[in-house]
Amino acid sequence: MVFGEFITVDTNGFSDIINITDKVQDVVHKSKIEAGIVNIFVTGSTASISTIEFEPALVEDYKEQIDRLIPHDLKTRHSETWGDDNGFSHIRATLMGPSIVVPISNGRLVLGTWQQIVVVDHDNRHRNRKIFVQCMGE
Amino acid sequence: MVFGEFITVDTNGFSDIINITDKVQDVVHKSKIEAGIVNIFVTGSTASISTIEFEPALVEDYKEQIDRLIPHDLKTRHSETWGDDNGFSHIRATLMGPSIVVPISNGRLVLGTWQQIVVVDHDNRHRNRKIFVQCMGE
Amino acid sequence: MVFGEFITVDTNGFSDIINITDKVQDVVHKSKIEAGIVNIFVTGSTASISTIEFEPALVEDYKEQIDRLIPHDLKTRHSETWGDDNGFSHIRATLMGPSIVVPISNGRLVLGTWQQIVVVDHDNRHRNRKIFVQCMGE
Repeated sequence: MVFGEFITVDTNGFSDIINITDKVQDVVHKSKIEAGIVNIFVTGSTASISTIEFEPALVEDYKEQIDRLIPHDLKTRHSETWGDDNGFSHIRATLMGPSIVVPISNGRLVLGTWQQIVVVDHDNRHRNRKIFVQCMGE
Repeated sequence: MVFGEFITVDTNGFSDIINITDKVQDVVHKSKIEAGIVNIFVTGSTASISTIEFEPALVEDYKEQIDRLIPHDLKTRHSETWGDDNGFSHIRATLMGPSIVVPISNGRLVLGTWQQIVVVDHDNRHRNRKIFVQCMGE
Repeated sequence: MVFGEFITVDTNGFSDIINITDKVQDVVHKSKIEAGIVNIFVTGSTASISTIEFEPALVEDYKEQIDRLIPHDLKTRHSETWGDDNGFSHIRATLMGPSIVVPISNGRLVLGTWQQIVVVDHDNRHRNRKIFVQCMGE
């Protein structure tokens, strides 16, 4: 069985983190799949999917550290060429990747207690993000 | 066909690396799947799954470099708020991600000769890690 | 349904980026799968798979930044032990991971308009890379 659909979330950019665990679980529930996997994939080249213990102190820590590694005011050829000032966003997204895959068991996501599925939006402005959630199994 | 189960490993923390290739191959063998994929997913928010040429010199190099990028003595809001001193562990885990997917062909993992599947435990203490290995295919 | 095969690409190393989107789409087309997923996995321990807006300015930016984070002239125990001078390549590959999974819908890859699937070759020399493209679905 295969069941997939887009979910959408409003984001703030600059690597802000949005918890999408409940939305992903809703798609898994609709799929009626009891055992299998779910692929969570963000379309666009300036965002990533990962997991985190979703609590506000850690979200701030993460944003501070990714900004130390790849600064938001980085001079890039991409920004100079295209004038959109988000070269740093692309580099962060390529480093972290656009997708994760989470197991489904007994119709539920297999996650740790303090582990949430998140979209990380690295762009330099508000976005409405489209994330494809593809469930496969039996 | 879908077949999955947890494997467990004892880990040392501070981004130590454990080779789980044989354990993953054992689950693939039990699944009797000849062609498909296997999703390797670590539950918890302070560990990652990746691949590496698993040899001791490189494991030390990796640990040194991840510690240079995200230091283990980093001051974090997370550690101050929750008192568990592992904010750095969470940030490393979110950067690297909790899962990979490896192809199965002829009943075997498709890997390079010098490429092993590993869990990287970023936490600041010994853990007994649970990793879900989900096989799908035919 | 499961359909997979290797694709090959010639690469330049030092984290150069090669666009493999069309080759992956060709395998998806051959699989005749309308809805499902495709797992793109690079064999070997010195390369990664990710997505990027594939344009030359950004490729140069990315190469410059990954070289700032994990320099190509890094002294490593791995290089000293094995004499192949590519310890930095391994560390970059483990950080970024060997695989991504992309959804298939209506027989097409689900990607953003400016989002391409790429292999990033971190090694320190030319390589002929083998990438397994495994399609699953119905």
